[in-house]
Amino acid sequence: MKTLGTIDLRRDRSTSLQAELATQLKKMIQRGELCAGERLPSSRELATTLHLSRNTVIAAYDALVGQGYLESELRSGVFVGRAAQAFRFQLSTRSRNSKTSNPQHPQANARFREPLPFRPAQPDVRLFPIKIWNRHRARVLKRGTNILHYQSTFSSGLHGLRQNIAEYLRDSRGVRCDWREIAITSGSQQALFLLSHLLIKPGDAVYMEDPGYLGARLAWKQAGAQILPAPIDDEGICLPRSEEIPVSLIYTTPSRQFPLGTCMSLGRRLMLLDCAVRLQTWIVEDDYDAEFRYKSPPLPSLQNLDDNRRVIYVGTFSKTLFPSLRIGYAVLPPELVDRFANLKHIAEDHGPLVDQATLAAFMDSGAFHTHLRRCRRHYAERQETFLDAIARHGLPLSFPITDGGMNIAGLLPTGTDDSFYSEQLRLNGLDVPPLSKYSIANVQPGLLFGFTAFDPRTIRRGIDKLAKLIWKNGSAHPYADSPRSAARIPR
Amino acid sequence: MKTLGTIDLRRDRSTSLQAELATQLKKMIQRGELCAGERLPSSRELATTLHLSRNTVIAAYDALVGQGYLESELRSGVFVGRAAQAFRFQLSTRSRNSKTSNPQHPQANARFREPLPFRPAQPDVRLFPIKIWNRHRARVLKRGTNILHYQSTFSSGLHGLRQNIAEYLRDSRGVRCDWREIAITSGSQQALFLLSHLLIKPGDAVYMEDPGYLGARLAWKQAGAQILPAPIDDEGICLPRSEEIPVSLIYTTPSRQFPLGTCMSLGRRLMLLDCAVRLQTWIVEDDYDAEFRYKSPPLPSLQNLDDNRRVIYVGTFSKTLFPSLRIGYAVLPPELVDRFANLKHIAEDHGPLVDQATLAAFMDSGAFHTHLRRCRRHYAERQETFLDAIARHGLPLSFPITDGGMNIAGLLPTGTDDSFYSEQLRLNGLDVPPLSKYSIANVQPGLLFGFTAFDPRTIRRGIDKLAKLIWKNGSAHPYADSPRSAARIPR
Repeated sequence: MKTLGTIDLRRDRSTSLQAELATQLKKMIQRGELCAGERLPSSRELATTLHLSRNTVIAAYDALVGQGYLESELRSGVFVGRAAQAFRFQLSTRSRNSKTSNPQHPQANARFREPLPFRPAQPDVRLFPIKIWNRHRARVLKRGTNILHYQSTFSSGLHGLRQNIAEYLRDSRGVRCDWREIAITSGSQQALFLLSHLLIKPGDAVYMEDPGYLGARLAWKQAGAQILPAPIDDEGICLPRSEEIPVSLIYTTPSRQFPLGTCMSLGRRLMLLDCAVRLQTWIVEDDYDAEFRYKSPPLPSLQNLDDNRRVIYVGTFSKTLFPSLRIGYAVLPPELVDRFANLKHIAEDHGPLVDQATLAAFMDSGAFHTHLRRCRRHYAERQETFLDAIARHGLPLSFPITDGGMNIAGLLPTGTDDSFYSEQLRLNGLDVPPLSKYSIANVQPGLLFGFTAFDPRTIRRGIDKLAKLIWKNGSAHPYADSPRSAARIPR
Repeated sequence: MKTLGTIDLRRDRSTSLQAELATQLKKMIQRGELCAGERLPSSRELATTLHLSRNTVIAAYDALVGQGYLESELRSGVFVGRAAQAFRFQLSTRSRNSKTSNPQHPQANARFREPLPFRPAQPDVRLFPIKIWNRHRARVLKRGTNILHYQSTFSSGLHGLRQNIAEYLRDSRGVRCDWREIAITSGSQQALFLLSHLLIKPGDAVYMEDPGYLGARLAWKQAGAQILPAPIDDEGICLPRSEEIPVSLIYTTPSRQFPLGTCMSLGRRLMLLDCAVRLQTWIVEDDYDAEFRYKSPPLPSLQNLDDNRRVIYVGTFSKTLFPSLRIGYAVLPPELVDRFANLKHIAEDHGPLVDQATLAAFMDSGAFHTHLRRCRRHYAERQETFLDAIARHGLPLSFPITDGGMNIAGLLPTGTDDSFYSEQLRLNGLDVPPLSKYSIANVQPGLLFGFTAFDPRTIRRGIDKLAKLIWKNGSAHPYADSPRSAARIPR
């Protein structure tokens, strides 16, 4: 409830205070400063706030009730009338009334969505040890209140966290880095966005995997880049064919190509690094789910092979901890470290520090590794459940790469409209994006399945439903006559 | 400690496993993947990890100890040698050794700084009711784990928080807004940065207060703007003199000009709004400390008078709650709402949500208002203490505006080198920036004092020290002959 303390009554005017108050309230309603359904202060309260007699307030309220601006309800007070909407100053074309339905609990409107099966690249946040996290957070806060102050020296993130990440990346991903080359960002998305501002001038060309990660494409395009779609073959991203157009940046996901899942071969890695030196271009290596290997140990990062520091390595805790934490990082070549830090400082001064300090402590304690191991165990089981269920149904989908971290792409016969299938599934509560969503020039249709956020039972039920829908919807589709034969995909 | 699980021994080669392991370890040290002082796994652990015999590992370790790469310490294990630095692959020109001094507690290096007196615009974070905050946070987390997932629909912030902010701004600042016009940002700095990308093309002119807020100037400049310094007079920002250069944005702090403290007069407000319509330009109103009024009630925001929706209102919780929370907001004119949300989505997907939900609950509960009242009470007392102490010492500073929210500017005689004074104070533990730091064309020298983060005793001691230093350093200064007479400032 508002105090209405900003009402400024011109007491020197010829109108009475009562009329003046009514006019002011009316204007506030017209301007939308008071909304339909909102409760006004009691006459006693408002009289005290504005140094008026209570009778003046009562008279003003009564006048406005008479005019339909206000409504009076026995024992609950005076409210802005529902009809008041009609009087409103036109602030925007949108409805401004959403709060009215539930004025006491505004956040009731804000529903947090749970990912539907088989939304890709979603961790199972129920596995996250929030109690252990909170214990570390409490310890961090006990160290003193200074962490609550501005700490602009930590634009690129807390030193302790950067040191832990550097150590983790050197050990688990073979990333060659000093902790000072690590910058903490708000998810990997902020890293991509800031890099786009540092490295791309409007009209520059960016060579990126096609199909590829949409968040990256948006960042490059926002900076004015022209996107050159890079085909993917069995060894990963194909090299730029001609050197006619100068490429200012190459974007790739070598550990497991998003969304297809291809792991870039060692030969291709070396060729790509050579190519970057030749073209004088940067490579952004997005290592978004490399933590999730279930059988063979992972290849070290592309950055590990790079003797010329052309690779910018980008990663995130969105997949390993939880997405709404918004902590990611970039490992920067020495010549970009200061430029990135300066831009980060202008972009947001520094990021939220309590979470960063908590994460540093969480990593120190070993809880991060324990959690990773636990996730890997669950996710490996879920991947197996997923592949079993898929195999049982004999769907018209081929799965050339089944070693997924968080996602597995199922290919449809060439010429299929994958968005048609995806839309049918979506209408039935399954979130399975079509490969065409991620594509510019690539024509291989398919569906992308995430399996990590869903327990085995949900996965089995989801695939049962999917199978029914796909066979059913096959009849509305060019391949309907022999959907099973359509399952053979030309490679 | 690293597991070294990524070591890949080529078992088919002619060299022995022992030599191969030694070579791999050496390479990791050379590349900086293992740092001086780092502890290696025990021979037993590494043998298990790599499926080797323990003797192979011991032999490899021994060989490297002999070569100076490793050092063995009785009963504590094997470490990367200090001399190993010399072998290192040159990753960057910086020292890469900071962790060595304290490998067990990396965040010990990260000292959170407390603001020194009289650093401007710092809240007293010790007043923040962290226990109450944590209680709300715990309740938010109890509602379920969905808040931990990606919630890209909340790019512009949680609905409940935006609704609470809209209500608060309508009530306390007379801001005319619908909650959908509010976007949550990472401090007000992110709002300024994103606005610079939406509204400024390289070469555009930005008309901003001079002296003025550095964070804003950095944002405009980063977007390629040419800064036109706006003089400040007794009524606030002066209107652009000629209309020769097209101005794409006007930046102002009307409630209390930063850093001088001037409150923009009603007449000037109306003229500025007219001017914005005439020039077809946007006004960014930064209302950074309007919450802190101690005597007269605040004028409503400039945005309140704007019938043409040219004003973008920017605010922050950095001053009212705590800075490292990094929650700010912008109130956007309808035509910018979607453009801002799209850019925010590309810039970081969405912000951290647990803090946003906690803040929404904190505001719902009334704790925000209680905290504001408490801060106002303390800050009013501190302002009084500050002014008393200043008056007692009769310093060569004039304080034309003493109604400060968080800061008070003390003017020095024209021609004084204010950065000289500031530097002398800095060397003695006082953080009092010179006005010239915030200035482009303005020539009025002075010092800017913040008083909110310091208790009365610290304020009194700080001013005592300041007085000594200013009188002492006066002797090194052109005005030294009659420092007291220099206190009369030509206005």
